[in-house]
Amino acid sequence: MVRGMMMDTPLNVSAALEYGAEMYPDAAIVSAAIEGGMHRTTFGQMLPRTAQLAHALKALGVKEGDRVATLAWNGYRHLELYYAIGGIGAVCHTINPRLFPEQLVYIVNHAKDRVMFFDINLAPLVAKMRAHWPKDLIYVAMCDAAHKPTGEGLEGVLAYEDLLAGQPTCIAWPTIDENAGVSLCYTSGTTGEPKGALYSQRSVMLHALFTLTSGMPGLRSGQTILPVVPLFHVNAWGLPYTAPIIGLNLIMPGVKLDGPNLYDLLESEKVFSSWGVPTVWMGLLAEIQKRGKKPSALGEVIIGGSAAPRAMIEAFEKMDISVVHGWGMTEMSPVGTLGTLPPKDRDKPIEERIDLKARQGRRMFGVELKIVDEAGKRLPHDGEASGELFVKGPGIISGYYENPEASAKAFDAEGWFGTGDVAKITPDGYLIIVDRTKDLVKSGGEWISSIDVENAALSHPGIAACAVIGVPHPKWQERPLMIAVRASGADPKKEEVLATLEKAIAKWQMPDDVVFVDQLPLTATGKVSKLTLRKQFADHALPDVD
Amino acid sequence: MVRGMMMDTPLNVSAALEYGAEMYPDAAIVSAAIEGGMHRTTFGQMLPRTAQLAHALKALGVKEGDRVATLAWNGYRHLELYYAIGGIGAVCHTINPRLFPEQLVYIVNHAKDRVMFFDINLAPLVAKMRAHWPKDLIYVAMCDAAHKPTGEGLEGVLAYEDLLAGQPTCIAWPTIDENAGVSLCYTSGTTGEPKGALYSQRSVMLHALFTLTSGMPGLRSGQTILPVVPLFHVNAWGLPYTAPIIGLNLIMPGVKLDGPNLYDLLESEKVFSSWGVPTVWMGLLAEIQKRGKKPSALGEVIIGGSAAPRAMIEAFEKMDISVVHGWGMTEMSPVGTLGTLPPKDRDKPIEERIDLKARQGRRMFGVELKIVDEAGKRLPHDGEASGELFVKGPGIISGYYENPEASAKAFDAEGWFGTGDVAKITPDGYLIIVDRTKDLVKSGGEWISSIDVENAALSHPGIAACAVIGVPHPKWQERPLMIAVRASGADPKKEEVLATLEKAIAKWQMPDDVVFVDQLPLTATGKVSKLTLRKQFADHALPDVD
Ligand SMILES: Nc1ncnc2c1ncn2[C@@H]1O[C@H](COP(=O)(O)OP(=O)(O)OP(=O)(O)O)[C@@H](O)[C@H]1O
Ligand SMILES: Nc1ncnc2c1ncn2[C@@H]1O[C@H](COP(=O)(O)OP(=O)(O)OP(=O)(O)O)[C@@H](O)[C@H]1O
Ligand SMILES: [Mg+2]
Ligand SMILES: [Mg+2]
Repeated sequence: MVRGMMMDTPLNVSAALEYGAEMYPDAAIVSAAIEGGMHRTTFGQMLPRTAQLAHALKALGVKEGDRVATLAWNGYRHLELYYAIGGIGAVCHTINPRLFPEQLVYIVNHAKDRVMFFDINLAPLVAKMRAHWPKDLIYVAMCDAAHKPTGEGLEGVLAYEDLLAGQPTCIAWPTIDENAGVSLCYTSGTTGEPKGALYSQRSVMLHALFTLTSGMPGLRSGQTILPVVPLFHVNAWGLPYTAPIIGLNLIMPGVKLDGPNLYDLLESEKVFSSWGVPTVWMGLLAEIQKRGKKPSALGEVIIGGSAAPRAMIEAFEKMDISVVHGWGMTEMSPVGTLGTLPPKDRDKPIEERIDLKARQGRRMFGVELKIVDEAGKRLPHDGEASGELFVKGPGIISGYYENPEASAKAFDAEGWFGTGDVAKITPDGYLIIVDRTKDLVKSGGEWISSIDVENAALSHPGIAACAVIGVPHPKWQERPLMIAVRASGADPKKEEVLATLEKAIAKWQMPDDVVFVDQLPLTATGKVSKLTLRKQFADHALPDVD
Repeated sequence: MVRGMMMDTPLNVSAALEYGAEMYPDAAIVSAAIEGGMHRTTFGQMLPRTAQLAHALKALGVKEGDRVATLAWNGYRHLELYYAIGGIGAVCHTINPRLFPEQLVYIVNHAKDRVMFFDINLAPLVAKMRAHWPKDLIYVAMCDAAHKPTGEGLEGVLAYEDLLAGQPTCIAWPTIDENAGVSLCYTSGTTGEPKGALYSQRSVMLHALFTLTSGMPGLRSGQTILPVVPLFHVNAWGLPYTAPIIGLNLIMPGVKLDGPNLYDLLESEKVFSSWGVPTVWMGLLAEIQKRGKKPSALGEVIIGGSAAPRAMIEAFEKMDISVVHGWGMTEMSPVGTLGTLPPKDRDKPIEERIDLKARQGRRMFGVELKIVDEAGKRLPHDGEASGELFVKGPGIISGYYENPEASAKAFDAEGWFGTGDVAKITPDGYLIIVDRTKDLVKSGGEWISSIDVENAALSHPGIAACAVIGVPHPKWQERPLMIAVRASGADPKKEEVLATLEKAIAKWQMPDDVVFVDQLPLTATGKVSKLTLRKQFADHALPDVD
């Protein structure tokens, strides 16, 4: 090999913060503080505090490669932790506070965390879990001394601001091998036990750069973005790393993510773009409808994590909020595809554009996609063939953290990662997620996409949310059952819903029954938990429809 | 080290073309063909031809790491060569056809090129040089059989289209180590012998991604860009790699880069953004003035390679063409800084914005800057202190190709690259290039920035171009001499020019003399050659001004 003669400067996350602090020192970080009120800081002010935090971590004995856990909402201290931990070469293990207790026990012990930072409203959770976590774990409450939580199970907890006090505000960040682990995130646990993805300094920086190739209008200096997507899951879709390198303002919503609170924050902070999962947008759309107008500056929402229903996309687009529908996975850093329209599709009539946006977007640069049949043979990208989706790229895991069993099952012979999703790809590169393999309803020899049936039902204005699952059937193996939530004030009848469906889907895809419930069970990341529904409705007797 | 568990997919240029061809197959590549007329193709059509070319290169015996030379203007075949050569892991050695014959002899022998591709209008140059180049060099004329140049010195030349014919249109690009060399470019030779920079697969891809962080409006899918900057020098500022990953249309201007031709092409192809060195814009501005209107779609020009005079920036901005003034070097891939204004400066009055744009922009992400005094001590970024500029980053060379002497002199103890430029940096991150170290006029104990004096003179409408050099002076060591070109139809007097200067610069900075000439000598990349001027005016007798 003839080696290029270029500096081997590694891609390090510390460079992103240094850049943001120097080039966009006024870029705002506004947080709905857990202590109450709004907290305002800037990337310029964040750097010296992050340096202090880095020194404090070292004083606590944190070494390169050590896991430091965070159990926290979106706020400025959480962002400081990202950079201080990664900056000194340790691993930021973000934990989803909404996981089940047994999952929390599992992952903290599995990750062998050395220090845990937690938001003060999560003190009761910490107190409850502590007995099940490593004895020598150091606990730091993300607050000043005055707000430090006390009581049983909270003995010896340190206060974040006490740690920082007196530490030098400057630091020479060490040069870290770009392949070193920088953050650790476990999957949502939608289909089973959470599994760990250990990102590297290189992978998170490349992922952030790759997202810029999509041309999202929100990703431009001076724009204001509110990530509802949590810092505690998949690095909030990479935004903590993108923001300082292009000069974004970040609005950190803290813990209250319901429609009214979100609306107020979007309005008061003049947010242009907001990122989140579909369930969050349900709440916001209901609030917008109630108030009769959209938050005034809102021009873009990024939707991912589960399928964005067509009706939701339509609602946003018709109020001039551009939807970018993306698809990704914890295992992918997480963005795989993004739904910014290519030039050829931009001037199409609005209904066509909405149809296109109901697809899961197109691969971003740096992510390769293939769909294969059961024998592993590649299927054409013709928009017709569907098969399991495999992915490849520098932002995709090569194995699960300390989990050889799960790792062994996850890759094909070519080394591509199997997503567990079934998909089609159109000739012009749009990804269409048919369903998760585990969520497909296997009826007779055919597969029914639960996503398609849900999408169709949600076009009925009386349905606020719904989920389709397969229930065992003596003749057909499985048949679809719809579990639906009525829109507030509406009282749709089963027959009406079925009539709506009949216009959109084939007869054999029609649910055998529709059951109304008050709310759907959600996973820790706000997705509908079909695992729970399948357990709840395992014995549901389907009416005899045949 | 705890290694992240991410795929080690290398950054390879082939992925960029594959991506563009798949995701933006209709993105246009329009070339002013050397054979005459306009040639139209797309990224979708380019991929199969590039695959054929890659097979053809292998058939010619080209192996990984081999240097393949190009001696060509901006056109679609040159772009195909970039990707075919890099795609198979060979090194694309772009050669500037405007170099002096002795420089051409030097670099082709120094690079040990194995194959040389050349545009047909350069056949006379090839015929002339051939005797001085390696005996076993294979020559390919970039044309079909019908256009193949013949005659003395052109025996055995192959035709590009003949090579492609019959080759498979598909290829499985090999996975190349991302640190392997991918292209080789020699410096402009403004200050001495050209020196080689050997870029890697990684560095060119990172550089392309880094440029996206600047937020230039031209760098968005569907935009049309005309690079006047040549593919034969510093990879046309990275555009060949940026274009397919974000879906740009490229207009390749071929060989005719004078004002009228450029204007016509900008107009007929509805170009939004154009990139080039100041001398090119002189010609375009003169043409715009003549026609009384700007090319209708032109909204942005990127100016770099030498200082963009304030008067030039003003002319563009006042016709609503946004200027991005950048600074870079062959040794930097080449972009170092870019002049997109940060949010805080965007709404300033136009005169202030023009002043800001006369600076050399702000560092792009991935490039670190420092200025140091003679002892190598860092100077503050206060906009006052000036010192030699050093740079660091994954897009910057770690040494010159096969040139240990030059390499030994180029880096400081910390491993940073010394640019040979003297600069200031403002607290808000703007770079101000004072001058090249070699171009500073050393008068008494003081330094005079030739750029400042030139800038001041160019605000006189009667001056089309000018250069300030130091000429030996018995008392002051050196004193500034201005060599100027009159604007067409104007007849400015020396005294008038000096009167204009007096308003802008200090008395001791005033040139001792102004000499009018018909044109300034240019280097091979279109910069004013002060080396030549210093030779020409070595014996110039300054009038006694003291
Ligand atoms: N836009 C989308 N449309 C449809 N499904 C989506 C979309 N975005 C994400 N998904 C689903 O979410 C999955 C990735 O989610 P995540 O990594 O957060 O954990 P999970 O798969 O929900 O949990 P676990 O892997 O632990 O079961 C994808 O594999 C896909 O099934
Ligand atoms: N915007 C700018 N303003 C002032 N000078 C610039 C600007 N952009 C580039 N330059 C000058 O051009 C130099 C880089 O040019 P390039 O690498 O093409 O070769 P060169 O320096 O002209 O030739 P050589 O190194 O062989 O003498 C920079 O070091 C700087 O002096
Ligand atoms: Mg999953
Ligand atoms: Mg130089």
